[in-house]
Amino acid sequence: MPRPLRDFSRLCIHTITTKPWSIEEAIDRYAAAGVKGITVWRQWLEGRDIARAGENVRAAGIEVVSLCRGGFFPATDAAARRAAIDDNLKAIDEAEALGAGLIVLVCGADPNQPLDESRRQIFDGIAAVLDRAEQANVRLGIEPLHPMYADSRSAVNTLRQANDICDQLGSPQVGVVLDVYHLWWDPELKSQIERCGRSDRILAFHVCDWKTPTEDMLNDRGLVGEGCINVPQIRGWAEDAGFDGFIEVEVFSNRYWAMDQLEFLNRVKDAYLKHT
Amino acid sequence: MPRPLRDFSRLCIHTITTKPWSIEEAIDRYAAAGVKGITVWRQWLEGRDIARAGENVRAAGIEVVSLCRGGFFPATDAAARRAAIDDNLKAIDEAEALGAGLIVLVCGADPNQPLDESRRQIFDGIAAVLDRAEQANVRLGIEPLHPMYADSRSAVNTLRQANDICDQLGSPQVGVVLDVYHLWWDPELKSQIERCGRSDRILAFHVCDWKTPTEDMLNDRGLVGEGCINVPQIRGWAEDAGFDGFIEVEVFSNRYWAMDQLEFLNRVKDAYLKHT
Repeated sequence: MPRPLRDFSRLCIHTITTKPWSIEEAIDRYAAAGVKGITVWRQWLEGRDIARAGENVRAAGIEVVSLCRGGFFPATDAAARRAAIDDNLKAIDEAEALGAGLIVLVCGADPNQPLDESRRQIFDGIAAVLDRAEQANVRLGIEPLHPMYADSRSAVNTLRQANDICDQLGSPQVGVVLDVYHLWWDPELKSQIERCGRSDRILAFHVCDWKTPTEDMLNDRGLVGEGCINVPQIRGWAEDAGFDGFIEVEVFSNRYWAMDQLEFLNRVKDAYLKHT
Repeated sequence: MPRPLRDFSRLCIHTITTKPWSIEEAIDRYAAAGVKGITVWRQWLEGRDIARAGENVRAAGIEVVSLCRGGFFPATDAAARRAAIDDNLKAIDEAEALGAGLIVLVCGADPNQPLDESRRQIFDGIAAVLDRAEQANVRLGIEPLHPMYADSRSAVNTLRQANDICDQLGSPQVGVVLDVYHLWWDPELKSQIERCGRSDRILAFHVCDWKTPTEDMLNDRGLVGEGCINVPQIRGWAEDAGFDGFIEVEVFSNRYWAMDQLEFLNRVKDAYLKHT
């Protein structure tokens, strides 16, 4: 087991976690609560001066941990694949303007073509934006998604696959994002995290919990401690593999989005210290 | 790609697929439709003379392919684990009476304990009933379940795991059940099916499809052809690995259970010939 978390110096929250709040409100509320990191979802930047938004975050004493999300490379027709690459190039521009050193890649999948084909297109898509990412000094983090999203959200469904892609690309610009919700069930998780460590490629660590029963495949995640994932054990594996960055709370939950967000933020902090 | 299916000589249907029908009605309807195999869920035998039910199936020209389902071994307390073993022994008695040569194991998981512990208890549970299964000449088929069921239905979530358990048990009485719904996403699927073939341990093959979107984690499966699973490809891999048994249609679907079951049975047959 890893060392207990005793303060909020490594706590990062995703703007999607407090979905009812705008970026401005999130910055104010997180800063007042002592939260030290933020991962910004791209929708929160629509209609904003992105560079100024980044300055506002830093002026509040908060670090921009990552921009969420790039990816969604696969498609049956070439024009759509080209549009996806263009959108990822735009995301790199946005990350650069925001001052985010990392883009989280939800790699995509198209149910109208074989999984293998989606997997090839993901590789090609990342390769196509790699030069621009290097130039902008923005790293790309492949986030393996739970196999229940293999039809339409990501054809990268295990950490082994993400490690294989990284090995094949062979660029220090590309690494992996660990999310306990997607990975907890995998019998190979410990050994694949160790493999990440040998290449120093763990770029981010996302937490939430798996509830029993889970009533919605997308928006029924729990706070850490509410479910069956042994988050401290997985955090320990990541830290043994050299990871010492932010612990990012990413919770999609219709239930939590419906409640008072200040009260919810207190629960997030409580779950962070007690169960993470 | 495997050879097309041109008749119903290998078509088996699970009683749960036509849930509104009793065992008696299912036997009559399947026989009239030319279906040659049936997998009987245990609930369908409640209050019945099981040996006579088996005779009725065979008298209708139908083979009993398997009894569904044993397993659910893990639990936090020892008394519950003992009760699970007793229930599996009872299932073996039932399979013997019914004339089923196979019990499908949905191995179980308990969200209140670590996954590793559930996995150990599954191994111990199967080992505890093995002698009785041999004596009854009933084989036990470990069915890996989709990782979205790892919290409470099965801690065996990949074919690699099922193969590992079989290797460790080292008994020809134990093999695996392939279900495309649970396995289709796995990048290792082809190589692990080949591994099954080397040990001649594919005991059954279940089909349905993964719909996009899937609206219910349990009861929104599609007929083959309605979703994104490449069923013929996976069937080809299984047949290349030596499998030549029944193709079992196992569809949990609130939508289909609500419709006229005779019309549904025609759709099952149509999907079988056209898309499987």
